[in-house]
Amino acid sequence: MNEMLNPGATIGILGGGQLGRMLSVAAARLGFKTHIFEPGANPPAGHVAERVITAAYEDEEALRRFADGVDVITYEFENIPTSALDLLESLRPIRPNRKALAVSQDRLVEKAFLNELGLATAPFAAVDDATDLAEAIAEIGCPAILKTRRFGYDGKGQVRLKSESDAETALADMAGAPSILERFVDFTAEISVIAARNPSGEVACFDPGENVHKSGILHTTTVPARITEAQRTDAVLMAAKILNKLDYIGVMGVELFVTPKGLIVNEIAPRVHNSGHWTQAGCTVDQFEQHIRAVAGWSLGDGARYADVEMLNLIGDDVEKLQDLAKQPRTQIHLYGKSEAKPGRKMGHVNRVL
Amino acid sequence: MNEMLNPGATIGILGGGQLGRMLSVAAARLGFKTHIFEPGANPPAGHVAERVITAAYEDEEALRRFADGVDVITYEFENIPTSALDLLESLRPIRPNRKALAVSQDRLVEKAFLNELGLATAPFAAVDDATDLAEAIAEIGCPAILKTRRFGYDGKGQVRLKSESDAETALADMAGAPSILERFVDFTAEISVIAARNPSGEVACFDPGENVHKSGILHTTTVPARITEAQRTDAVLMAAKILNKLDYIGVMGVELFVTPKGLIVNEIAPRVHNSGHWTQAGCTVDQFEQHIRAVAGWSLGDGARYADVEMLNLIGDDVEKLQDLAKQPRTQIHLYGKSEAKPGRKMGHVNRVL
Repeated sequence: MNEMLNPGATIGILGGGQLGRMLSVAAARLGFKTHIFEPGANPPAGHVAERVITAAYEDEEALRRFADGVDVITYEFENIPTSALDLLESLRPIRPNRKALAVSQDRLVEKAFLNELGLATAPFAAVDDATDLAEAIAEIGCPAILKTRRFGYDGKGQVRLKSESDAETALADMAGAPSILERFVDFTAEISVIAARNPSGEVACFDPGENVHKSGILHTTTVPARITEAQRTDAVLMAAKILNKLDYIGVMGVELFVTPKGLIVNEIAPRVHNSGHWTQAGCTVDQFEQHIRAVAGWSLGDGARYADVEMLNLIGDDVEKLQDLAKQPRTQIHLYGKSEAKPGRKMGHVNRVL
Repeated sequence: MNEMLNPGATIGILGGGQLGRMLSVAAARLGFKTHIFEPGANPPAGHVAERVITAAYEDEEALRRFADGVDVITYEFENIPTSALDLLESLRPIRPNRKALAVSQDRLVEKAFLNELGLATAPFAAVDDATDLAEAIAEIGCPAILKTRRFGYDGKGQVRLKSESDAETALADMAGAPSILERFVDFTAEISVIAARNPSGEVACFDPGENVHKSGILHTTTVPARITEAQRTDAVLMAAKILNKLDYIGVMGVELFVTPKGLIVNEIAPRVHNSGHWTQAGCTVDQFEQHIRAVAGWSLGDGARYADVEMLNLIGDDVEKLQDLAKQPRTQIHLYGKSEAKPGRKMGHVNRVL
């Protein structure tokens, strides 16, 4: 599929969460229809999509039905089972490509890829057992973080080691999953670049945002980030390098640590990213539309930032403050249509124009 | 229904065109689901709604099914058959109310209502036959416009009389429909105020936009309008007076002529309005969200304008320029998902930040 998708075409989205929901809305704005594939019932994206297929990723018939109804497939999360991707890829183009998924699904592969590209990461070592861990601690030192190589998100699947004496309990937490030990990075700030690339190789990056986490979950992103002009340029060039190397098509979130020794890549996410939600209030074209444009083979839109914005996540019962937030000036509310507000669950976000 | 709708509630929308589509998206942003009732197949709003009921307004069973599934009913066009409204109103609250519909469905009732409120309109007279028309021309003079009292939109159902000699052909054009003769207003500009009112009586108006029509169809709306501060205040106060008098809940479009003698109300539309599409690019909260907030009984949002914007309608084959538009800086594209580009058909619009 090198040609451009025309309005009226249908974009398939794997995953029906809030990212799929906001992608659906952006697709509609450009005249596209969307179909959602999601194992869970009543997914947020389903409220704004033309069709929802509720089925497991192991259900080949459902995957075929999904592929039959769409012109191109994209996704809102990276942990899609390989077998599903193998089948879908034989039926329709998947954008971003498998290479991006393979790299980002595994923290070890990801860090090796970044280092090969000449980009700095935290020192790391693979850990499969107690011997590996002892060697890794000897090599890397503490404080460090032991993380599962796969399936971690929002601080899940990771544990901090203050010293060697934490090794045993940390390893027990991994429950035998292949892991990676990363040296703790002493950063002054965490920023992220939301970058987009289309099939013609056009790259566009949004202005880097500065992230603050709480209990491992993104709390706020603020633009502009408190970084120098040189750091801003570095960050954008690093992101562009990653997308180009992967022949990437779509939007990627690149998280970076700002350290006295320069920028260090923390992780990449081959999809629209929570730290890019501010673009809905600060740009003519937001990250969701930029992703859809890229996936559809269109020119990228104008993502220049015209306002200072703070994005605040609404987690769990934060949504109880809703009617107060609704009264605030310069405040844009985005709710995800999730029925139950569980602790740690992302229920929505607020963009405040500063 | 005096209480507030909580996220998760469902808003029913009568009409599945582009206005319903953009209302659906705004509703989703606030965590609501939408159901669309529309006689035509594959309506634009259906691509972004949880449910679409395809049925005639005469289908009582379908109307009941629609009402059963929603918490409140709103609409995207004013010519809803009375019998359907009678039934729906007995089942669920309809916002805006029937009074607003009754006034705006009939140009004669509308003008009488506005004059009673002390607001200026073009001189007018009811015309049912040739005798009425002769009398009306004698009273009002020419140039004048003969319009059907009901069901006119986008310049349809109206004909201009340069002089008395045009009377016979003009009347023939009305095909026996009850009509109204309006004196042609010599205006320097046409502006519109997009005004919102919620159940607590809170009123908020967007900055007036200046409209340019082509062949009877809105071509551009530009903000700010080229009017004085006094005119801006007048316009907003006039709009607020109308909404308050009608106990209105929702967004209304109020079209005004700017004349050397002051502002004259052209017509009102009890719904979100094409001349308010610029708010998507110029305000934190746009007209669609403002309507949903009002209908849901929420506080109105911050609709202060932060940018100069030109909204350009894409009519018929204007959409062929799409890929050129996609490359323009500061340009936001909105397509309506209509499959066929017929002449005069609104296919989308573009908001350019100036």
